[in-house]
Parts: sequence; C-alpha cells; structure tokens
Amino acid sequence: MKLFDNNNHQVATKIFALGGLGEVGKNMYCVMHGNELVITDAGITFPGGELMGIDYVIPDFTFLKKNEKKIKALFITHGHEDHIGGIPFLLQTVNIPVIYAPNQAVGLIRKKLDERNIQYKNLIVYDEKTKVKFKNIEVEFFRTTHSIPDSHGICITTPNGIVVTTGDFKFDLTPIGPMANIHKMAEIGSRGVTLLMSDSTNALNEGMSMSESKVDNALQEIFKKHHGRIIIATFASNIYRLKHIVETCHKNGRKIATFGRSMDTNIDISIQGGYIKNKDIFITPEEANHLPDHKVCLLCTGSQGEPLAALSRIANGTHRQIKLKADDVVVFSSSPIPGNALSISRTINKLYLRGVEVYTNTSLSDIHTSGHGSQEELKLMLRLIKPKYFMPFHGEYRMLKQHADLGVECDIPKKNTFVLGNGDVLSMYKGKIERDGTVQAGDVYVDGNRIGDVGGAVIKDRKIMANDGIVIVICNIDTKKKMLLSNPNITTRGFVLVNDNIALLHDLEHISKRAIESTLKDRVNYSDMKSAIMTELTSYIYEKTGRKPIILPVIMDIKRNS
Amino acid sequence: MKLFDNNNHQVATKIFALGGLGEVGKNMYCVMHGNELVITDAGITFPGGELMGIDYVIPDFTFLKKNEKKIKALFITHGHEDHIGGIPFLLQTVNIPVIYAPNQAVGLIRKKLDERNIQYKNLIVYDEKTKVKFKNIEVEFFRTTHSIPDSHGICITTPNGIVVTTGDFKFDLTPIGPMANIHKMAEIGSRGVTLLMSDSTNALNEGMSMSESKVDNALQEIFKKHHGRIIIATFASNIYRLKHIVETCHKNGRKIATFGRSMDTNIDISIQGGYIKNKDIFITPEEANHLPDHKVCLLCTGSQGEPLAALSRIANGTHRQIKLKADDVVVFSSSPIPGNALSISRTINKLYLRGVEVYTNTSLSDIHTSGHGSQEELKLMLRLIKPKYFMPFHGEYRMLKQHADLGVECDIPKKNTFVLGNGDVLSMYKGKIERDGTVQAGDVYVDGNRIGDVGGAVIKDRKIMANDGIVIVICNIDTKKKMLLSNPNITTRGFVLVNDNIALLHDLEHISKRAIESTLKDRVNYSDMKSAIMTELTSYIYEKTGRKPIILPVIMDIKRNS
Repeated sequence: MKLFDNNNHQVATKIFALGGLGEVGKNMYCVMHGNELVITDAGITFPGGELMGIDYVIPDFTFLKKNEKKIKALFITHGHEDHIGGIPFLLQTVNIPVIYAPNQAVGLIRKKLDERNIQYKNLIVYDEKTKVKFKNIEVEFFRTTHSIPDSHGICITTPNGIVVTTGDFKFDLTPIGPMANIHKMAEIGSRGVTLLMSDSTNALNEGMSMSESKVDNALQEIFKKHHGRIIIATFASNIYRLKHIVETCHKNGRKIATFGRSMDTNIDISIQGGYIKNKDIFITPEEANHLPDHKVCLLCTGSQGEPLAALSRIANGTHRQIKLKADDVVVFSSSPIPGNALSISRTINKLYLRGVEVYTNTSLSDIHTSGHGSQEELKLMLRLIKPKYFMPFHGEYRMLKQHADLGVECDIPKKNTFVLGNGDVLSMYKGKIERDGTVQAGDVYVDGNRIGDVGGAVIKDRKIMANDGIVIVICNIDTKKKMLLSNPNITTRGFVLVNDNIALLHDLEHISKRAIESTLKDRVNYSDMKSAIMTELTSYIYEKTGRKPIILPVIMDIKRNS
Repeated sequence: MKLFDNNNHQVATKIFALGGLGEVGKNMYCVMHGNELVITDAGITFPGGELMGIDYVIPDFTFLKKNEKKIKALFITHGHEDHIGGIPFLLQTVNIPVIYAPNQAVGLIRKKLDERNIQYKNLIVYDEKTKVKFKNIEVEFFRTTHSIPDSHGICITTPNGIVVTTGDFKFDLTPIGPMANIHKMAEIGSRGVTLLMSDSTNALNEGMSMSESKVDNALQEIFKKHHGRIIIATFASNIYRLKHIVETCHKNGRKIATFGRSMDTNIDISIQGGYIKNKDIFITPEEANHLPDHKVCLLCTGSQGEPLAALSRIANGTHRQIKLKADDVVVFSSSPIPGNALSISRTINKLYLRGVEVYTNTSLSDIHTSGHGSQEELKLMLRLIKPKYFMPFHGEYRMLKQHADLGVECDIPKKNTFVLGNGDVLSMYKGKIERDGTVQAGDVYVDGNRIGDVGGAVIKDRKIMANDGIVIVICNIDTKKKMLLSNPNITTRGFVLVNDNIALLHDLEHISKRAIESTLKDRVNYSDMKSAIMTELTSYIYEKTGRKPIILPVIMDIKRNS
C-alpha cells in the first residue's frame, strides 16, 4: 500500500461519479489510486420525453478512455439496467480487463452481450466470500436486500481510507430471499470507514419501505376473490416479485403464461440461477387459452402503459393471442414511474372499458413495494457504516440533499457531507477528504444502435418537426442564365393535411419563386437565396397557420452538376 | 310545453355530450327538445404528449353546425378553460344566438374574444335569480363552490322532465367566497329531477376534499417562518387561491409582483369583478427589486414546470427581471396534473440547486386543495338532487364508472345509471330515459391558429420525425433519355449529426443512385422509382443505425417542366 509514488510524491485517492448524481439512473462510480482505477456499475437511463427518439442515455466514457490503462476492474452491485445497461457500450469503447458481478447479474449481462454479439471472456461471479486485491486497492462485498437477488454493497479499501458504496438497497427484515448481512456491515463499520456513498432513490420518503412479504397478503386476497383469469403486470426486473407470483400461482393451482421479451429473459435466468424453482408452472399462451380460466395467470410487461408492451396490446384488443374476457382481473403489481402517469391511466381506462376489474397500488396499496429504502433505512445504513464523510448518490438533486440532511441527523458533521454532481472529484488523503476539481462527465445519447451521433442540433430539429413539421422547397436554377428552371417544388411532412391546403401550398410555391427571383437579379449566391426563402416563408406561414415548421430550401443547379 | 310536434308525433328530449365523457376536459353537453337546443359549456382539452404539436383539442361541432337553427343559447357554468376555452372556435364555426355566463366567466370570455378579434355582442351575465325561458325549455341556475368565483349548476326543465348539470363543484363548507346554495339544490331536488349529470373529476378520491380555508394556515406558516422573498406558483385560474395569497400578503406587509400573462389576465378580471379588493398591493417587478426581501411576494405561473413559464425561467436563471437569492422561498400552491411529473421535478431540482427552500403539496399537504368534490361530496349532491336517472360526466372512464357506483350506493337503480361516451344519446320521454343511438362527436385538433387541418397522417409523420428524423432524396432525371442528370441530393434533418456521418450519407447517395438507375432501365414510372429508393434506404439505414426515419424521395424532371 503506497501513499507515495515512485517519485516520492504524495498519492491521494480520487473518488468521483461519471453518472448517478442529480439523476436516478446511469450509475457509475470510480475510485482511483495512483495507477489503479476501479469502477462500480455501468448503468443507463431511459430518457424522458424531452430527448426525442433517444433510446438510452449512457455516461460519457472519455475519462475512462483516457485512463484506460489504469482500469483494473468493473464491479457490478446487482443486475438492474441502471447498473448494468451501459456495459455493452462501455466494452465497445474502453478496454475493461475484468468484470466482477454477482450470480444473477452475470446471467443478465451475458444475455445482454450475446444479444449484441459481443465476445467478452472475463466476466467473473463474486459472492460475499470473494476478496479482490490489486496492488493498492482491495475490494470486498456485503449482501443487501433489494428487488433482485444477489444485490451487494461494495467495500473498497485504499491506502488513504475505506470507501463503501451501498448499491441499491432496502432493509427488508422479512425478505423473500436471504437477509442483508447487517453483521458484515457492522463489522466494516467498526473498521472505520472514511466515505460512505449511499442510495438516495427514496430519500424523500419517511419511515420504512414495506417488506416484500406484505405483497403476499395482497396477492393472496386477489387470488381468493377471483375465479376468472388473473393478468398481472409488473417490472420484469423485479425478480422477487416474479418469484412471489410464481409461488402464489403454485399454491392456488394456476399455470402461468408469460408475455414480453424482458419477462421471458428474467424468468429464464432466474430459473437457471435457482431463484425460481417451479419450472413446470410455465405454459404457452396457446395452452393457457385451452385451460379453464381459474387455472390461468398471465404475467406480462406493460405496467407503465408502454404502448408496445403486452398489456397495452391486450387492453387495446390488438394482442394476437389474448382477448380479454369479462371476468378477467388485471393487477398492476407496480408503481408509476414519474412521467408515465398518462400512459398508465390510458391503459387502465381501456381495461375498464372492456369491463374487467383492475387493481393498482392506488386501489390496493400492498400490491407493490419499493426495492429502495426510505429514510429510516437510510439512517440505519449510516449508523451501521458510521462513516467520517458522506456522499449521497443515485438520486435527483433534491433527494441527494435530503439524504445529506439525514446524514447530519446521524451525527455526520455538515461539512463532511458532499452533495455533488457527476464529474466532481473528491480527494482522500490519510483519512481526510476534500473537493478537488472535476473530470469530464455528461450525457451521451444512444439512438438505435449508434452511440453519440445524435446531439443537440439533431434533437432540436426533431422537436421542431414534432411540433410543426417540415416544409421543403426545391429550386432548380440555371446559375449562368440566372433563372429558375421550373416552379419551386414544395413538399411537406407533419405540417398540414396536404389535400385540405392546396391553396396554402400554392401560395408557398409562389412566395418561394418570388423570393428566389428577387435574389437572382444580383450575383448568384446560394446562401442569400436560401435565407430569402426562409425569411419569406417563415413569416407567411406563421401568419397563416400560427406554426413554425423547419423551412428547408434546397437549391440545385443541374447544368452545373451534369 | 309540447310533448307532441305539429304533426302530432311524440317529442322526446335528447340529451348527449359532445365532450367531457371519457376525459377530463372539453366539456360540452346538449339538451334538445324538438326545435330547441341548449348547450352547456364549450371547453377545450390540453393534449398530452401523444398529440405532437397540437395546442388544443376541441369538440367536433358538426352536429351543432347541422342543427344550427335549433340552437337557442350556450350556457356557461364557470370561467375555466375546459368549460369556456372552445368558445372562440365555436363562434367561428356555428351561429350561437346568445351566451349566458356568470360574471367572472363573462370577463374571461370577453378577454378571450378580444384577443382573437372576435366581435360578439350577445354575451349576457346571469346570476341565481335569472330564469331563461324558451318555448319548451326553461333554464335556471344554482350557486356551487369551486376554485373560481361564480360557479353554477344548471337546471333545465323540459316537457319530458328536469335535467340538472352540476358544472364543476365541491362542497366547501367554509369557503373563501359565498356558500353553495344547498337550499336551492334541495328545492330543485324536491321538484323531482329526472336526470342528474355530475362532475366525476375526483370520483376516485375517498372522503371530502379539504376546504380552501385550510390553505390559509399553511400559507400563514410559511409567511411567518421566512424573511426572504416568497415566490408562489399556482394555477392562474384558481381565483380563490389568488385572493387568498393577496390577503395573506396584505396581512404580512408584502407587496406582490405578478409574472405570466394568464396570471395578469385573471388578476385584472378578478379586481374588476370585485373578487380581489387590495388593488394597491400589486407592484411592478422593478419596484419589487427595489423593496427589501421581506416585503416582497412574487406570484407566478409555472406550477406544472411548463418550460416557458415564469417559474421555469426563474429556476433556470434565464428570467430577465428576477434572479434567485439564497434566502428566497418557492411555494408550489398546486398539485401536479398527470403527465407533468417530470417537468415539475426538473424545476424543483433546479430550484434546490440554486439553494432556495421549496414547498410543494408533498412536503406540505395543506398548501393546495382541489376544487372538485371527493366521494362524500358527490354523494351529497346525489342525495340533494335525488334524481331518477344518473349520468356521471367530466371524467375518464374509470372515474365515470366509480361515480356511477356511488350513485347506486345512493339508491339509484343500477339500470338507471349511464356510463356513456361522447355522442351517445339519451332519450327522455315523460320522465323515462333510455339509450337512443349516437350523434357525431370526436376530437378536433387546433394547431396554431387553424382548426382541424392537422389530422392523423400529420401527427403520425410528426411522431416518426420526432423519433428518427427525415431523409430527403432529390433526384433530377431526364425522362426521355432515361437518365439521372446528377447524383441524388441527400438532405437530412433530425437524423444524425451530419458532420460526423459523411460516409453514411455518401452511402445513401450511392444506394439511391443505384436504386433509381435500376428502375430507369424499364419504363419510367415515378412511383416505382420512389418505392425502390424507400425500400433500399429503409433497410440500409435500419441496419446501420437502428433507426426508421421518414424517407422522402422527390423525383424531378426539369426538362419536362421547363
């Protein structure tokens, strides 16, 4: 363990996030000492409506690329997308010598890499007994409770002090899977932890999150009351919920048909991992359609009202295999993710219109519980680890701030709490921590299968076209003769219904013609022509329609090109 | 009063909605007897994210246009946009001989018509004493409580029975304005009402909505605790809240600067109407900037995180007049409208980042209350009016259904409750009601200043362009010589960052050229050329980028045109 480098300079340990601060998602945290850099998690965020057409947001990997040689390993806390979703993109950009992940996460990562045809050999399963030692940095793990099996916190020992990151956790004292290892947490706490980084997702919620076991009662109640088919929509990533539903079906003599690709993936991997044991309970949709209703449960994606998910298609009556019946019951074993309220309520209304009964966490609160700890649980973690310094992570700014306040309530001096942004660096030296500049961090957009080739300008154009469409004006000119070869061609998309607006479009043609002819009098300058067309059309269109579409003039000189 | 027409045929009274069923918004209800048609309300809906670029949704007025001569009057229950917002569009389409509205609504309607330069003379103020009599139909009014002054329910007496529509209401027993006239409701109920149509907005909420007076305590608490500027964001249409805030400021020696056009409009009209009395409390933003902080309240729009509203610009630091200070307090005296959760939380995070304290109805529940009645209030209305038949209105399908169930709890036979859609007709004859076909109803989109010229095809194009952009391929050909005159011109918007993708765009040019040349070998057919380009480019682009932009080929034959 070296506090000085080969030139006898002091070596401080640097700690920073490349994602996860000021946002729920895209988790990626780095601890660097000298020439050793270890990364925790590599997540994605699913963007809100603002980022039109963007499929995922991933961290900016520039810093990692520049410091590629220092990277010793990537450690994964658990198998959720906001912790593993960025791995395929990371591996395409940066050389990662080895990835350590717990068993369930390894299954999900392998599937993810297979789907993208990425060959990667160094994916290693860790458990609580694993210790990974580098020259200066040592990494070990402690079991937590969350909504997916094998969630772990990570303890990173450096020459300058111990850093603990919790990953996602709650303290479920009657969990479906194994208990969190609070004894190991206590033991690590006793060693003297310099910095705790802890999950802030539910920092705004008072009290304790409900135990997953409580969901049992709610499920059991529904299964007892109804004799039609039971259709359950839940997060495919909530493996303990899936396990729960499987066991409830088993007890009640119902078989399960699953719908949705992510549902199938998660169930396959959970069966392989031994987390779900009743393998024979699963049947095909065809088989389900031939069983009596009271022997059937349909388990599907779409709890957020996603238009293409199984449940939405069932609600719309457009699902190929499943048609709703009057005595079906639909259960949303989930909570609305902010931003999805409208699509969820559309789906619920459609279900009601088809006459089925619907349960949601509003009508039956015990039908869902969060996998993240509320305030009392966050305090318990602070008390167990009793760090000298505290950096809340995994949360929007107001959650981080609230979590920092909880830290102060738990006897951490206010000046020792850090509410930071992605890229902000902490410098740890001999058990003391202070702020120390920044590294490059930010959002990189993934659209389709390409990383980063959609930037601000593209998004801006998409927004304008989403609101008002595009008007394309094609002008063929003869540069030498300074004349238009034909009337400008006006084509629009997303602007107006063309057949109802022939006169308007004719006006646009006429105005474009006049605009271009007025500039052709002078020397021929393409950019003057374009801006004349844009100016004239923009004001005319705004006056007539109140809209501001993209005006795209294309000037062509055939003679010159041919 | 005639039950038979001139040919001695029976005349049934028809009752139907042109908007407001299956949705919260766009209220418009019709009662028609023989040659007399009276309309209640003419609202708009603000569309969710699905309807790209659409500003408002209004009812389909086709039925009214066709039955224009029967229309006797439009009656307005109160001055909110979902009840009066459609008036300018209605008046542009259909001749409405007279509009009756309560005082505050008349002010707001007049302003609305002025802004759109619509001259309309027959706007008449009604109050509880007003009775409007036509040949067969008689209309009177009863005062309700809601979040805007002068809200009324309407009682329509026809030869076949009495129809009562509540408008929006709650039973606020300690209201800021006058009490609801429960005695008149009771008296109307005693006459024997055939059909009640009642507000379902809060039908899913148990108990009673909190009294507006309770907000007083919450406001007072904040005013006592803080000595910096107090910035309050609320719905401009919630006049009682504005009145409340004005009075609290008056008591606490603070002046008020207002921000946002709708805020100014509503305050002006409320001062004119005498609802807000402390006229001198209002100051300009410049004056506010010269007063000590503890004497200032800033009252602004933007409680839903609308990106262009005053509060969002203040939070962003881009407001021209107001820069945040560390001891400012921001109060959201509002609740999130479904669908706005993300934008609100963005605004709150930005405010936190600037170090100010933020109150919302999550952190301080008494800071807002709904203007709509919860289940106990809906039951009270059902008990007071005690109708023979019941049609819940103003709500999504699940709200209407829940409200119908409340009706059954209040002794209305289940077969006498009607959960209907817009356009479904009820036929009332001698105090009996049954379903009776449909009239044309639906959504008409307003985009910019034009009604209905944006339809499904335009919205669909906007969605595709929002997600993946547009690729325009311009080909100049010589039809006679069957040849391309130059390489196809490829222009894109919202697709990829052009400078980073020169090679890809070059490929597209090449593929388009090949596609068009292969079709030019045969007879020259524009649509074959276009579909060849579309097919080739679509699959190549999807393979390379995972995107599906609009492919827009434009084929031009200069020779032929010139």
